[in-house]
Amino acid sequence: MAGRRDWTRETLAAGVRDGDRRALARAITLVENRDELAYAAVADLYPQTGNTYAVGLTGPPGVGKSTLISSLVRLVRDRDGTQVGVISVDPSSPFSQGALLGDRIRLADHFLDPGVFIRSMGTRGHLGGLAEATLQALLLLDAAGKELVFLETVGTGQSEVEVIGIADTVLLVLMPGSGDSVQALKAGIMEIPDVIAINKMDHPAAKTMLTEVRSILRLDRDRDWQPPIVLTDATRGENVSELWQKLLDHRAYLEESGQLDERRRRNLAGEVFSVASARAKQHIEHAVTDDPELRRVLDAVQSRELDPLTAVREILEKVFKIDRSA
Amino acid sequence: MAGRRDWTRETLAAGVRDGDRRALARAITLVENRDELAYAAVADLYPQTGNTYAVGLTGPPGVGKSTLISSLVRLVRDRDGTQVGVISVDPSSPFSQGALLGDRIRLADHFLDPGVFIRSMGTRGHLGGLAEATLQALLLLDAAGKELVFLETVGTGQSEVEVIGIADTVLLVLMPGSGDSVQALKAGIMEIPDVIAINKMDHPAAKTMLTEVRSILRLDRDRDWQPPIVLTDATRGENVSELWQKLLDHRAYLEESGQLDERRRRNLAGEVFSVASARAKQHIEHAVTDDPELRRVLDAVQSRELDPLTAVREILEKVFKIDRSA
Repeated sequence: MAGRRDWTRETLAAGVRDGDRRALARAITLVENRDELAYAAVADLYPQTGNTYAVGLTGPPGVGKSTLISSLVRLVRDRDGTQVGVISVDPSSPFSQGALLGDRIRLADHFLDPGVFIRSMGTRGHLGGLAEATLQALLLLDAAGKELVFLETVGTGQSEVEVIGIADTVLLVLMPGSGDSVQALKAGIMEIPDVIAINKMDHPAAKTMLTEVRSILRLDRDRDWQPPIVLTDATRGENVSELWQKLLDHRAYLEESGQLDERRRRNLAGEVFSVASARAKQHIEHAVTDDPELRRVLDAVQSRELDPLTAVREILEKVFKIDRSA
Repeated sequence: MAGRRDWTRETLAAGVRDGDRRALARAITLVENRDELAYAAVADLYPQTGNTYAVGLTGPPGVGKSTLISSLVRLVRDRDGTQVGVISVDPSSPFSQGALLGDRIRLADHFLDPGVFIRSMGTRGHLGGLAEATLQALLLLDAAGKELVFLETVGTGQSEVEVIGIADTVLLVLMPGSGDSVQALKAGIMEIPDVIAINKMDHPAAKTMLTEVRSILRLDRDRDWQPPIVLTDATRGENVSELWQKLLDHRAYLEESGQLDERRRRNLAGEVFSVASARAKQHIEHAVTDDPELRRVLDAVQSRELDPLTAVREILEKVFKIDRSA
């Protein structure tokens, strides 16, 4: 890795702690490459973390998440100069590079602002590893003094939940036409977020969608925090300060009700569990690829000599020494 | 388990092999409960499986998947009396029971037909275990002589891919208003299916959607099989025979190009890997819950004494004896 020798565990940790952009960029790259130096630096910095408020943004592609983040960043920078970090998680995509890059361009408005650090992370085909990289990158931004971090991910499935599972507040961004997401909320397949933005508010169907989402949320009356829904126009910056206020309200609610600590405990334990599971999965993948004996087990399944579940037990027994009766 | 003692490994396997509905129903329940008797029966039956053609249906909630399956089942039953199985995977949902049950009612038309076996499976909070249960249930239907099995699941995330990952042909069902799914296809987040149905074809936006989906698929010219798109109306049964023909075409394409065997090999290996990963994950979950030492590791993460990644390494070392440098 070019430039790798420039940094030691000590200089990297110190550079991140000082908020040095080069150190931060290098540390995140090392995290993505699973470099031992990055682990060591995060381990050194970890005792000083816990000061960042993390807002997770999720929602289908094309609804304007990046533009909304860009507007929110401008708002908080103009208002009080809050130090901000943004982690955008790109989905693995064979032919969407252009579209997503176009979206990211809005974030480029902030590239020259020293108080804002923006980083895209690719999935590189393993979403499990991405939860790990996102968590480590968040800890680095935290240690570097970013008071607010936006974690952005596309989609609403299990893998995305793991990526933004560390967020204190989850913002779901929809737009008119997001019929599938509305149905998924209705069917209880998608988890209810803390705040909802319906972007592209000038679209004729925006108000209908607002009514629809509101009526779905009403089905769940037991909820102590009723997720507010804000109509926005991210491109024109409309209602962005209202949205920011709702995010602040949620933070205040968590703090005042004493739930913030509890939520962070749960999130952190959940992330440790997700990362451990993803690593175990990768371990199985490597073992099955590398071990001729395990490849023979798979061959026996193909030839119908060994049923799949017995094969699973043999693999777990071989790779992890898990008892077959487990 | 009531009635458990009625069945032995031998009588259960024999009953399933004879296509006895009571044996089949009992065996699938035992699979869901992870009963050793079910494993043993599937292991005994496995050498005789491999004769079923499995069609996986996926798509957002509310698009009419169950109704479409019901129409397809009627068609094949009327046409040549093909033995059919249906496995509907329900998402875990706190307040959608009614809606989904309403949908399933269409399938009830076939409950009295001895040539059709229908089973719903709940997620019970662990989707990993669901891939395992679906695979085992499919093998039981296969052994029971079902020539065609529909596997239905809601959503399009990673967990759903694992549930229908064993299917020979994947049918994505959309409807006008499924804007998020179209965006996800466009962004390359959703895998391109083998066949697409746009249901509720009389909706004014159906043709626009057809054009849009077609233009997305055209971006990927390297594809040998160009996924056909069929406009359907499942409730009225319109274009269902055209859709069935496209499914047959895909099957013929796989067979003639020699890809069916290759695909089944890959699917089966993928399922074994998914199930093994899900089990490893459950193993970690139990270990962390039960082991006071591992709970102390999590506590140290909470109090910022131990960073999350070091905690992950300690957990994997303790649970699986995985080397820390791994």
